Amino acid sequence: MAFVLFACLSSNKAQNSDSIEIKKIYNEALSNDIAYKKLEYLCKNTAGRICGTPQAAAAVEWAEQKMKELGFDTVYLQPLKVHSWKRGNKETAKMASTLLGDHNLSICALGESIGTGEQGISAQVIEVKNFEELKTLGKEKIKGKIVFFNRAMDPTQIYTFNAYGGAADQRVHGASEAAKYGAIGVIVRSLSESLDDFPHTGIMRYDKDIDTIPAVAVSTLGADLLSNWLKKDKNLILHYTTTCKQFPETNSYNVIGEIKGSEFPNQYIIVGGHIDAWDNGEGAHDDGIGVIQSMEVLRLFKTLNIKPKHTLRAVIFMDEEVAQRGGKKYAELSKLNKETHIAAIESDRGGFTPTGFSIDAPIETVNKLKNNWGKLFEPYGIYQLIKGGSGVDISPLKDQNFPLFGLMTDSQRYFDYQHAASDTFEKVNKREMQMGSAAMAAMIFLIDKYGL
Amino acid sequence: MAFVLFACLSSNKAQNSDSIEIKKIYNEALSNDIAYKKLEYLCKNTAGRICGTPQAAAAVEWAEQKMKELGFDTVYLQPLKVHSWKRGNKETAKMASTLLGDHNLSICALGESIGTGEQGISAQVIEVKNFEELKTLGKEKIKGKIVFFNRAMDPTQIYTFNAYGGAADQRVHGASEAAKYGAIGVIVRSLSESLDDFPHTGIMRYDKDIDTIPAVAVSTLGADLLSNWLKKDKNLILHYTTTCKQFPETNSYNVIGEIKGSEFPNQYIIVGGHIDAWDNGEGAHDDGIGVIQSMEVLRLFKTLNIKPKHTLRAVIFMDEEVAQRGGKKYAELSKLNKETHIAAIESDRGGFTPTGFSIDAPIETVNKLKNNWGKLFEPYGIYQLIKGGSGVDISPLKDQNFPLFGLMTDSQRYFDYQHAASDTFEKVNKREMQMGSAAMAAMIFLIDKYGL
Repeated sequence: MAFVLFACLSSNKAQNSDSIEIKKIYNEALSNDIAYKKLEYLCKNTAGRICGTPQAAAAVEWAEQKMKELGFDTVYLQPLKVHSWKRGNKETAKMASTLLGDHNLSICALGESIGTGEQGISAQVIEVKNFEELKTLGKEKIKGKIVFFNRAMDPTQIYTFNAYGGAADQRVHGASEAAKYGAIGVIVRSLSESLDDFPHTGIMRYDKDIDTIPAVAVSTLGADLLSNWLKKDKNLILHYTTTCKQFPETNSYNVIGEIKGSEFPNQYIIVGGHIDAWDNGEGAHDDGIGVIQSMEVLRLFKTLNIKPKHTLRAVIFMDEEVAQRGGKKYAELSKLNKETHIAAIESDRGGFTPTGFSIDAPIETVNKLKNNWGKLFEPYGIYQLIKGGSGVDISPLKDQNFPLFGLMTDSQRYFDYQHAASDTFEKVNKREMQMGSAAMAAMIFLIDKYGL
Repeated sequence: MAFVLFACLSSNKAQNSDSIEIKKIYNEALSNDIAYKKLEYLCKNTAGRICGTPQAAAAVEWAEQKMKELGFDTVYLQPLKVHSWKRGNKETAKMASTLLGDHNLSICALGESIGTGEQGISAQVIEVKNFEELKTLGKEKIKGKIVFFNRAMDPTQIYTFNAYGGAADQRVHGASEAAKYGAIGVIVRSLSESLDDFPHTGIMRYDKDIDTIPAVAVSTLGADLLSNWLKKDKNLILHYTTTCKQFPETNSYNVIGEIKGSEFPNQYIIVGGHIDAWDNGEGAHDDGIGVIQSMEVLRLFKTLNIKPKHTLRAVIFMDEEVAQRGGKKYAELSKLNKETHIAAIESDRGGFTPTGFSIDAPIETVNKLKNNWGKLFEPYGIYQLIKGGSGVDISPLKDQNFPLFGLMTDSQRYFDYQHAASDTFEKVNKREMQMGSAAMAAMIFLIDKYGL
């Protein structure tokens, strides 16, 4: 029942005309369901589109067709090679305790892990919170066992990506760290702040010259249960089976759509997201959103008949999740072709209400941008124009020395869904997604008009 | 995969010690699930708790017990009388068209509407967007028909409460406005920006000396369908049945819990929400959240051993939705007892990530507060300390001339759920709720320490 009006923007004339244009961009983004329906299609028809899968190929074909239908000036593919890791049919885990009985756990293989084979592995479990504890325990206590990494994301971090950063080492490097001490497998607490039964996958990497052992994630509920059982019976046996494996590399593509610049057609402003997504979900927030929003930014320019001076490119990257081949390929080709970029924006932090942009550029550039344009964004709830990292796909462009932007979003819910079967279309709020498209279009409008 | 650090707060010594205290408040709120579990109980065990129901009585009893269990210094009830409107068992609607066939619509009676009786009503439908159109059409076109109010919430409003404000007249006053021209019933598009099949109820009021006619809400999907069918067959017959009715007034209560102030025990800072909720849902966002957060604010002070100088009161208001008797009773008694209030905060905009406070106080007070304390809130994503309305329950305190605050939240999802069966516990993100509790506790900490 409460009605609160946002304070009006008082500003000079240029800001007034810009604020009118930005309002038009938001109005169109918030009044049109075309992007939301695209997201539904992508989620419901190409779920499981990790690189190297038929679903990923379908998603590429779909993105190319959709950008052509949108009438962009140029739409083309950038070929590249990708890994092809597949989960296999079997993924089960069970605790067996002579004191407590048997209990199944919800697990999934970590991305690029080896499988256990059909027979699975069975061993006692040793729970640790970090790599230091492994060192303290040593080979004697670890050899032949399954290591259980159970350090939760730090709930007191306000920006949840920081909490993720503080816990992800267990998932990425846990297997090799544990293998150094003779472990035969690792089970890692899912990187989520939600207490539920969805296991969250994500990439892991083996160190060179260390034995490879099979790595799985367990749901947060399962992790709590396993930890509780271990307190009561440290001799319980964990059994798990995964049949994932690597297949030969295969062909894939980045998909690029362009609106040609009227004054500087050979200078590029890019906006992108990644079309690959972990195979256990629909990849809605990670990162169907980024794909859809990038296409939507160009559609907004076209629909509103805003003619950019520089060429705008929507870059739909392949393979952010596994080996970042798409981002690397784009940077390699742009260097080879001596392309000039003005700016790049990536959306890969979910389709939540945008709160700002983290900008990988000299602090002077960030401050100038904040001083000149900050007020234009405040009516839309965007207050954070700060120095920071951009996005995984565009970061290989860093040595070309132009500003890289990451769309920042309200991060509270992101890790509830990331890399899990719960990352579905239904978890996306239409308006929150639309606000993200509009924020990026507004930023690109200003960059195109005034430069950086 | 992106990691962005928030800029550190550079500030003077007082701000540093305050920022440390505020960080402690957030840490405790974000590390403890007690409030979230309370919300689950309230939602799952007292769903349907509109004033005058057994569920509302259960919720009052529960709130009193919980505040006693939390060890607050004083816990007591404020008796009051409430309406007792009940929905009845029958709530159906059907379009019947000789051209298109029959089709059911998802409807619900609007709060305090009369029912149609068991036989229901049947009539042709006339669709309008606003009250002006009624005038233009006049008695000739409207008499004997059902008026269909189908003005959608304006999607281009960034703050969705503004869009709600721009459409709510249809629901609140539509019946009497249509009855002036001889309509026999009204069906109103649900006040939601989500396109789904949940009808949204909410209060309606009859004007004096105008015929009372039965009013219902139809889901947004149903509204679109009805509008489409009317384009093809303006003679279709709408039939609907509702068996809601008024029962005699009954007894109910506000519930109050206090932590006594160490220096000014007779001066009050209050934080509140309303425990009544529409009968068709669990009342999670509207406003179980406000109840739970208010209790949590006092728990945070107690757990962190912060001794307030002024007495803190959690006020759990009854009857925000129908006649605002709880808010009025509290104000009446506080005047009668010559109580001195320092500030009041209400949380009634859902359990979403907090974005700020709207403050009903002289602009000088708002600006001073923003200048002195604004930086302390920025690390938590709170940038909006603005002049504006507070909340329905505390607004009767306005003539006592002290500042009233409304917790502002990210509003994009609120009206997807408000007053609908979809307003359930599962729609609340634990961290978003916790951030709201912490924001209010932090604001109260500063008000208690420095005054206003």
